[in-house]
Amino acid sequence: MVDIATRELRQPVDIAEYLFRRLHEVGVRSVHGVPGDYNLAALDYLPKCGLHWVGNCNELNAGYAADGYARVNGIAALVTTFGVGELSAINAIAGAYSEYVPIVHIVGQPHTSSQKDGTLLHHTLGNGDYNVFANMNKGISANLAHLNNTYDAATLIDNAIRECWIHSRPVYLALPTDMITKKIEGERLETPIDLSLPPNDPEKEDYVVDVVLKYLHAATSPVILVDACALRHHVIDEVHDLIEAAGLPTFVAPMGKGAVNETHKCYGGVYAGTGSNPGVREQVESSDLILNIGAIKSDFNTAGFSFRTSQLNTIDFHSTFVRVRYSEYPDINMKGVLRKVTQQMGSLKANPVQHISNALPEHEKDSSNQTITHAWLWPMVGQWLKENDIVITETGTANFGIWDTRFPAGVTAISQVLWGSIGYSVGACQGAALAAKEQGNRRTILWVGDGSLQLTVQEISTMIRNNLNPIIFVICNEGYTIERFIHGWDEAYNDIQTWDVKGLPVAFGGKDKYKGYKVTTRDELTKLFATEEFSSAPCLQLVEVHMPRDDAPAALKITAEAASARNK
Amino acid sequence: MVDIATRELRQPVDIAEYLFRRLHEVGVRSVHGVPGDYNLAALDYLPKCGLHWVGNCNELNAGYAADGYARVNGIAALVTTFGVGELSAINAIAGAYSEYVPIVHIVGQPHTSSQKDGTLLHHTLGNGDYNVFANMNKGISANLAHLNNTYDAATLIDNAIRECWIHSRPVYLALPTDMITKKIEGERLETPIDLSLPPNDPEKEDYVVDVVLKYLHAATSPVILVDACALRHHVIDEVHDLIEAAGLPTFVAPMGKGAVNETHKCYGGVYAGTGSNPGVREQVESSDLILNIGAIKSDFNTAGFSFRTSQLNTIDFHSTFVRVRYSEYPDINMKGVLRKVTQQMGSLKANPVQHISNALPEHEKDSSNQTITHAWLWPMVGQWLKENDIVITETGTANFGIWDTRFPAGVTAISQVLWGSIGYSVGACQGAALAAKEQGNRRTILWVGDGSLQLTVQEISTMIRNNLNPIIFVICNEGYTIERFIHGWDEAYNDIQTWDVKGLPVAFGGKDKYKGYKVTTRDELTKLFATEEFSSAPCLQLVEVHMPRDDAPAALKITAEAASARNK
Repeated sequence: MVDIATRELRQPVDIAEYLFRRLHEVGVRSVHGVPGDYNLAALDYLPKCGLHWVGNCNELNAGYAADGYARVNGIAALVTTFGVGELSAINAIAGAYSEYVPIVHIVGQPHTSSQKDGTLLHHTLGNGDYNVFANMNKGISANLAHLNNTYDAATLIDNAIRECWIHSRPVYLALPTDMITKKIEGERLETPIDLSLPPNDPEKEDYVVDVVLKYLHAATSPVILVDACALRHHVIDEVHDLIEAAGLPTFVAPMGKGAVNETHKCYGGVYAGTGSNPGVREQVESSDLILNIGAIKSDFNTAGFSFRTSQLNTIDFHSTFVRVRYSEYPDINMKGVLRKVTQQMGSLKANPVQHISNALPEHEKDSSNQTITHAWLWPMVGQWLKENDIVITETGTANFGIWDTRFPAGVTAISQVLWGSIGYSVGACQGAALAAKEQGNRRTILWVGDGSLQLTVQEISTMIRNNLNPIIFVICNEGYTIERFIHGWDEAYNDIQTWDVKGLPVAFGGKDKYKGYKVTTRDELTKLFATEEFSSAPCLQLVEVHMPRDDAPAALKITAEAASARNK
Repeated sequence: MVDIATRELRQPVDIAEYLFRRLHEVGVRSVHGVPGDYNLAALDYLPKCGLHWVGNCNELNAGYAADGYARVNGIAALVTTFGVGELSAINAIAGAYSEYVPIVHIVGQPHTSSQKDGTLLHHTLGNGDYNVFANMNKGISANLAHLNNTYDAATLIDNAIRECWIHSRPVYLALPTDMITKKIEGERLETPIDLSLPPNDPEKEDYVVDVVLKYLHAATSPVILVDACALRHHVIDEVHDLIEAAGLPTFVAPMGKGAVNETHKCYGGVYAGTGSNPGVREQVESSDLILNIGAIKSDFNTAGFSFRTSQLNTIDFHSTFVRVRYSEYPDINMKGVLRKVTQQMGSLKANPVQHISNALPEHEKDSSNQTITHAWLWPMVGQWLKENDIVITETGTANFGIWDTRFPAGVTAISQVLWGSIGYSVGACQGAALAAKEQGNRRTILWVGDGSLQLTVQEISTMIRNNLNPIIFVICNEGYTIERFIHGWDEAYNDIQTWDVKGLPVAFGGKDKYKGYKVTTRDELTKLFATEEFSSAPCLQLVEVHMPRDDAPAALKITAEAASARNK
């Protein structure tokens, strides 16, 4: 049966096809998720839209994977089913909202008639309320749309994808089973979705630029400090141009790792208050003007709020406002401001930067100690990494250790410093590795602890299923180390069941396309790093890195101590 | 520093201790969950309150496990951490709400000052909103309390536990880090929480009983049909007394499996419309009065709404109302009504019941076919089960197949027919097996498919860690079979990565306390069933049961066809 309205369509296209073609248009090539009876018929449309179905093991992992994919690819799509599926993914969606990661979350829903009638279907609360789960997503989605009719489906889809991109946050699209095959006008697919930022008011922008330049020229020791939102709100080119033009000492906050070319002559290291790289704190805290781009000053991003910088010496650049000392300029995007500041820069006074290297600290250099400690490990990782690597670190020791790793050019760093959901990194690794594969041949490297691994371990199976070749380092140190440093040093609740970690990919059916390693000494790890075959990442590789239970990066110790004090 | 108020307390007790002692009082012995920095200090109180910490691999699994524990033990407790932890568990909580399972969910929150100040802490959305996650729980909790001060903490705790029990649904308790050690009055612990149901209005109750008895005595072929809410709302004793007194043919809906002694002379089998056991449909649908106790007439519980019974021949008994034909009697609990109906029963007219057995269907009996089919399997399982076994079945083939398994006396059946979240059964098995161990030595038996297993597989590790001895049967049939029957018979999205299923417990560190089996023929399974050591469940055992990809229980086929039609 053809709807009367369908006959009037010039280029009729099914709603699911329209949606997936739009996702392809904005750069999605793989769709993450888990099949469920309310989304199955939609999945039929993926191949003809040029989209690959990943097929994750569960929805939380799929959400994490979509997050990792988006951070490498620019945007991601996730398909779950009503109730059970979407709720399993909700922690990943909240994380993406918190950390500004754009995921289009498509939720397969029951037939619109079943919803209207309040039919007692499976995957419901049994009370006829079909809105309760969508409502839970309101506080963690930049946009939420119900594709319940053909009249506005296309508009809602285009709008959601645009909002997802512009706000760099998840959006929620509810797709009932009967709407999947409904016809809408396909002609509008000829006009791409406008993903450009709304321009700033030019007069206001010029005004702000003048204020910024006034303070910048008056400063005697200005520095640049780059943070997460520079990455998430697409101003990396502007930041690089600013660094080139200004020649100012440049630092990153932990969540800004990877935003700046760390081999650049202006790069000075990680600033995180008392958790900073050696020498960095002095340079930043003595500066009389910090250009702070995209800051998220959370506890774990500041080593427990240990920044000792004054707002009187700070200009904050954000996606929705600029703040010069205490003067706020709302409703202005940093992108245009940064561009004009760079163009009109002129010459500045600047201190020379103390460039950071990958060298081991003096006291670690000649050590005959064969124990793999964090102080030794993380600079070594920097010596081993290659250009354009993708490095994922788990919330725990790895997320703090990586502050001491100087990256080659082009490295993408992925972590969840603000949201901090343990287990995230394993899912994210799957998504990132897939995006990396689609982009050519970037290496994807994961550092996860043996505790965090247990939450999401089955996504190693999805990596195998999708022929991905990440290098997975599992820090084997007998439990939740970050938690021990916060509370319960010897308590059993911070222990874990000991796994045969190296055996996991085999159990997941990866026997023939996998290599496992176990290293317990510095020499073994150094030798492995030097092995060309290992470093060429020919297949999925997993390395057990055995480290002492009571060791942690210095920055973690500081942050954990602050967290512990704050909890009391 | 001691609060002034503390000096006035007669028996000062810390809030966390008060809470955990109350949980112990109502029967909790083990607490499920995952440690997180906002709940660590609370976990310190568990041992002194006589509570065992389970230490699950992730929060969703912990929630499922708490659900399984509650179904065996009567009530369960779950501890998660703010944001990341509680959201990971929210699907399990929604499932418990949907299926009437009492779980006390304790969420460790940041310090009350941090919350008041909107501090930019990890595990937040970065917007200072500390209520967003608790609000998500409103629609799926019978009670939600913030333990933010010492004045009402004890009242809120007692009230929440009572509501949890009475409504048989999850409740949410937010416990900020600074409140854990705050002192409150412990004297009230000497008075147990009143868990008794509010009594019905006696006049109203008598009125309803008279109406019920009038129709019951007028009926010529009455039957009893028992469903999920009879179990969840604690009227099992009343139901058994009713059956004894009435001697009526008694049937169960799928979600009521385990509510009735299936070896009783009155037991006639599973009624699920066109998915009923052989002969059952005729007896139920020709009855002129169905006493329907605790019904949940959802699609999967009725083989796709295929009940052909009339409301004119039905009396519905529920926890909050009774309905006689179309006359509704709100605000009355079935418990008192059933008790009085039984007392005042007198003699009834009744048809003889056609008792159901565990015999194989005739056409399966002499078969030389060695393929393990569902038609053969499920009656065989009934021949193997023992009294008081706990049988958990996953949403999928197992949940429908079990309709054909006649239980010995005292068997507890666990499944999620309404909520239907795949992966549930593995977590639930951990919780159920632990409760079984605490109760003595009941066997815990899980039937899960190879697709569903992948979502929550790591909880096998928690079983090993807690020295539990379930027998896990994994139906290896290459993917999501129930979904194939709904849509996408040969589509890749219904496939899964092939795992070495039998190798999983070894990878999870269970090498020395585990036995694995693989059966591919009827003879092999029959032989295994006959092995005394296997059947005595001496350690964790996992059996790969290889079955054809395209086989399913008849009831599943009917239900899936109806679901498929409804989606279109």
